[in-house]
Amino acid sequence: MAGGRPHAEAVALEAAGDVAGATVYVTLEPCAHSSHRGPACADLLVEARPARVVVGVEDPDPRTAGSGLARLSQAGIRADILPSTEARESLAGYLARKRLGRPHVTLKLAMSLDGCIALADGTSQWVTGAVARAHVHSRRAKADAILVGGGTWRADAPRLDVRLPGLEDRSPERWLLTSEPCPDGFRAIAFPDAVMEMAEVQYLYVEGGAQTAASFLAADLVDRLEIYRAPVLIGAGLRAVGDIGLDELDGAHGRWELAEQAQLGSDTFTAYRRLR
Amino acid sequence: MAGGRPHAEAVALEAAGDVAGATVYVTLEPCAHSSHRGPACADLLVEARPARVVVGVEDPDPRTAGSGLARLSQAGIRADILPSTEARESLAGYLARKRLGRPHVTLKLAMSLDGCIALADGTSQWVTGAVARAHVHSRRAKADAILVGGGTWRADAPRLDVRLPGLEDRSPERWLLTSEPCPDGFRAIAFPDAVMEMAEVQYLYVEGGAQTAASFLAADLVDRLEIYRAPVLIGAGLRAVGDIGLDELDGAHGRWELAEQAQLGSDTFTAYRRLR
Repeated sequence: MAGGRPHAEAVALEAAGDVAGATVYVTLEPCAHSSHRGPACADLLVEARPARVVVGVEDPDPRTAGSGLARLSQAGIRADILPSTEARESLAGYLARKRLGRPHVTLKLAMSLDGCIALADGTSQWVTGAVARAHVHSRRAKADAILVGGGTWRADAPRLDVRLPGLEDRSPERWLLTSEPCPDGFRAIAFPDAVMEMAEVQYLYVEGGAQTAASFLAADLVDRLEIYRAPVLIGAGLRAVGDIGLDELDGAHGRWELAEQAQLGSDTFTAYRRLR
Repeated sequence: MAGGRPHAEAVALEAAGDVAGATVYVTLEPCAHSSHRGPACADLLVEARPARVVVGVEDPDPRTAGSGLARLSQAGIRADILPSTEARESLAGYLARKRLGRPHVTLKLAMSLDGCIALADGTSQWVTGAVARAHVHSRRAKADAILVGGGTWRADAPRLDVRLPGLEDRSPERWLLTSEPCPDGFRAIAFPDAVMEMAEVQYLYVEGGAQTAASFLAADLVDRLEIYRAPVLIGAGLRAVGDIGLDELDGAHGRWELAEQAQLGSDTFTAYRRLR
C-alpha cells in the first residue's frame, strides 16, 4: 500500500472483529506513532484489549523502537518479543532501510557446478534451465530495483524485466553500476556504496556480472546470496565472482548461513543470508 | 571376501533355510558358472526351489550375462530383472570393471560457493569443515585406490590415509598422476587412460588437484562427482577444475544426474552420477 498505511494491525483487527482476551501475533512491533494517515497500531491494540501480543521483531524506527511494546504493557496487555527468523526475513527490506540506511541487497549467481557463469568466450545461454530462469523472473518481481554492471549491459543487453504471465507489470526499476553515461530507461550508480542514494528502494536484486558481484561483496553490501547451480561442468570458463579482496580463509568463514534450498528442474537453488 | 566366493546367494540361502515357494531378491544376476571355490548361484537357487527370483542388474560377465536368468526360467522359476538404480550403484565398481575394463572413478571436489579450492596463494586449510573432512575419510575407506596429481602431492604432501578411529586399516592404495619418478609408498600412472592398467582396483577415488580433475573429466573417466561445498566465497582463488576442453554449452548438459545430497555441518555434500 502506498505510504504503508493502513498498517496490518488496523486491517487485521477490522477483519477479526472482537479480539478481547485473545493472543495477537504480529511480525513487526506495533508502531507507537500516529500519522494523518492513521492511528498508532499500539493504540489500536490497547483499545481492542487482547490478553497478549507476541512480536517477531522490534521496530528499529526511532518513533517506535520499544515504545510500542511499552505502551501495550502499560495498558496491562502482556507484550513480548519472540525473535523469529521468518519475521525478520519477511521484513528484510524495511529493516535494512531502517538499520543500514540502504536497500536489502540480494546477489543472484547462476553458475555451473565448478563456479563458471559462461564459457571463456562469454557464451552463457544457457547454463541453467527454463525452470530456474522462470524462478529468476519471480525473484525480479519481488524486487523494487534490479542492477547489473555496465559491462554486462553492454555485452548482453539484458532486458531485466519480468516475463511471467500476469506479472509483467511487476518489472522493477533498472539500474546499472557504471560511471559511463546511462542509457534510456536506466538509472546508474558509480560504485556499490552509492546504494545509500536509492532512497525509495527496499529490495535491490543484483544480477552480475562477475565484477559487479565482486564489488558488492568486497564492500560487504550483500545481504542474501541466491545461487542457481546447473549440473554441468565448464572448466576454464568465466568465473561467477571476481576478486573480492580476500586475504585469508579465516575471514571467509562465519559470514553466510544456509537460508533456503530447492530443486528447480535439474538445477538447484540455494540461498544464504549474511550473518551480521 | 577374497576372490568373491562364497557368493551372496550361498550365504543367504544357508542363513534363510527353506525358501521353497518364496520370492528371492538379488542385486546382481545369479551367476551361471561354477568354480573350484563354489557352485553356480543359479544352480543353488534351482535346488532351493523359490517361486520367483527378482534381479536388480544383469551380470555383464560373459559367463553369466543372461544365462543365470535363463537357467532359473528353464527350471520353472519365474525370474525377472527389475532395473534398480540402488542395485546398480551398489555394484558400480564391479560393473565398471566388467563393462568398461577399468575402475569406477569418483572425483572429489571440495570448494567454496564460487568454485574455488584455495586462495590464489594456494592456501586451502581449511575451506570445508571438520564434518566434511571426516566424511572424505569415510569415502576413502570405501575405495580400493586413491589418486592425486603429482603437483598436489609435491605442494601439499597429503597423507591420503583414513584417519577415522577403527578404520585406519581401510586406507586405500595410493597412486599419483605423474610422469615423474614415484615416491615410496605410491604407484603412478602417467595419464588418466592408464586407469585401465589398475587391474585389481574396483573403486578409484580421485582427490585433485584442479589439473588432475580436469584431465580425468576431459577423458570422460569420471563416473561420480562428490562435491563438498563450504558456505564461503573466495573470489579470485584457485579454481576447482581446470580446462576440460569444453567448446559449447550444449556439450555440458545431460551428463550429470543428482545422486545424493546431505548437510555436513555447515557444508553441503552433493553427488552426481555420470549418465552413460
